[in-house]
Amino acid sequence: MPKRRYAIIGTGAVGGFYGAKLVHAGFDVHFLLHSDFEYVCEHGLTVESVDGDIVLRRVQAYANPEDLPPADVVVLALKTTQNHLLPRLLEVPAGRDAVVLVLQNGLGVERQAAEVVGEDRVMGGLCFLCSNKIGPGHIQHLDYGFVTLGEYSPDEEPKGITDRMRSIGSDFQEAGIEIRLAEDLLLERWKKLVWNIPFNGLSVVLDAMIDQIIADPQSYRLTEELMQEVATAASANGRIIDQGFIQCMLDLTRRMKPYRTSMKIDCDMKQPMEIEAIFGNPIRTAKEGGIDCPRIETLYRELEFIDARNQQLAEGD
Amino acid sequence: MPKRRYAIIGTGAVGGFYGAKLVHAGFDVHFLLHSDFEYVCEHGLTVESVDGDIVLRRVQAYANPEDLPPADVVVLALKTTQNHLLPRLLEVPAGRDAVVLVLQNGLGVERQAAEVVGEDRVMGGLCFLCSNKIGPGHIQHLDYGFVTLGEYSPDEEPKGITDRMRSIGSDFQEAGIEIRLAEDLLLERWKKLVWNIPFNGLSVVLDAMIDQIIADPQSYRLTEELMQEVATAASANGRIIDQGFIQCMLDLTRRMKPYRTSMKIDCDMKQPMEIEAIFGNPIRTAKEGGIDCPRIETLYRELEFIDARNQQLAEGD
Repeated sequence: MPKRRYAIIGTGAVGGFYGAKLVHAGFDVHFLLHSDFEYVCEHGLTVESVDGDIVLRRVQAYANPEDLPPADVVVLALKTTQNHLLPRLLEVPAGRDAVVLVLQNGLGVERQAAEVVGEDRVMGGLCFLCSNKIGPGHIQHLDYGFVTLGEYSPDEEPKGITDRMRSIGSDFQEAGIEIRLAEDLLLERWKKLVWNIPFNGLSVVLDAMIDQIIADPQSYRLTEELMQEVATAASANGRIIDQGFIQCMLDLTRRMKPYRTSMKIDCDMKQPMEIEAIFGNPIRTAKEGGIDCPRIETLYRELEFIDARNQQLAEGD
Repeated sequence: MPKRRYAIIGTGAVGGFYGAKLVHAGFDVHFLLHSDFEYVCEHGLTVESVDGDIVLRRVQAYANPEDLPPADVVVLALKTTQNHLLPRLLEVPAGRDAVVLVLQNGLGVERQAAEVVGEDRVMGGLCFLCSNKIGPGHIQHLDYGFVTLGEYSPDEEPKGITDRMRSIGSDFQEAGIEIRLAEDLLLERWKKLVWNIPFNGLSVVLDAMIDQIIADPQSYRLTEELMQEVATAASANGRIIDQGFIQCMLDLTRRMKPYRTSMKIDCDMKQPMEIEAIFGNPIRTAKEGGIDCPRIETLYRELEFIDARNQQLAEGD
């Protein structure tokens, strides 16, 4: 059986990292690029990694989504702030009958892909990865890297573990990427929000690194309260997140090295922040279930203010 | 009848302004100073004001509270962050049987003075004043200036309008200061918090001027929500603040010129912010009445984080 063909939509810290690993393992991988297209055509793609560097001299790189060949698996690794482009981005690469693997942050992101390709063709993946794009075609991988895969369920019922999850999972494992298969993608998404909401949000609003947020008693307390609100919000989807999980997240984070969140990096670069995927969608989901998230909402509005100001400044450049 | 003798405890933007007006009107006013003491002894006190400048060449200035003569009225115009010093500051100047007029921000500030001088000797005043200290012994008065006076009530029952309120009020009016007499000081304190909590808090956390907070739809919405929480919190003290008042505050603020709040000025100067008086005490009061203020509390913890970092930086200077 020939190896599956992959298309990577969005060759940044996430797509570049996993795509390069798949190329390295012998898969046929096609990369959609935007700003780095010419650089990567000329110089290739470099992943500087704690697991060993990967330097791809020749990359199957494309500037236009129409130029990619139809793939078996389309890895969606764009920032969610670009999701209004999905109809054009997915049309050709996901055109035959590809599975779209959504490696994006936040909640409701699979639905956005499903609206384009159909709900049976979408899978979700949660990346636990510390990596940054530090230059054109240059990704630095600092820590972790495992991916939790799960099937998208439009009716919110857990879909269990499917054959295609196992197949794609085994490709990733062949590429040296640790994979976990989750029966309930939605639960995993909410669990990840338990971390992402307080730390992405507070790192931006307080202009702080994770270790500072953990060290200060007031921001630590606020982190706990925000995590609690995420757990309560998850019950709008019938998902239960217990105290033990929250405590575990706090303890794990306490042991992390000083770390700048992805939202903080976007903010510092005056790039649009993924506020709707990480904050807006969970708040709306909770609200539809009759659950109020006043602390998350406060942070959401603060972030929106900061983002709007950043985008005005960026336009002024 | 001889004119009343005033002692001004804290000769900054508030105490310096009202004190200078009283001197100008012929009252016997004694000023306690700290960092500006030597400068004011040598050069006097200047109030540059939209109502006309006041330059006092000779000022009855003191560096130690023990050196002030006993006064009839002690005007407490310190930052609330200094209130742990009240026992020493009030002992001599308020020693005979002075009334202590607390011209401080926030909630619970009269109680702190009452713990030192006794509850019958305390009155509160809310200053609606735009003024800044722009140099040693140099105050700039930009706008407004009126004071709402009210009697402190340890049992939280409105005390109505008393003779001593009228007397002190008439001294201030003689000095050209507009005075309003309030039957219910506690209600006035909560009403002022409706403005102070959102605008002081958000101006610091969002690094923004009032007009920016009003112009952005998300921060405007958050301002409304915070005002709503203040109104709900006030019910812990049995005080009713209606929607009309909130709308009026928003409309008035929309017409203000770009303005930097006092808390934002303190933050920018790396001075301690008045977080406990403006946020901590109202939150605790609400909590004792079984009322939760999640948005105010979020802002409170964010401010505490920023304040702690500022004080560490200030120590490092």
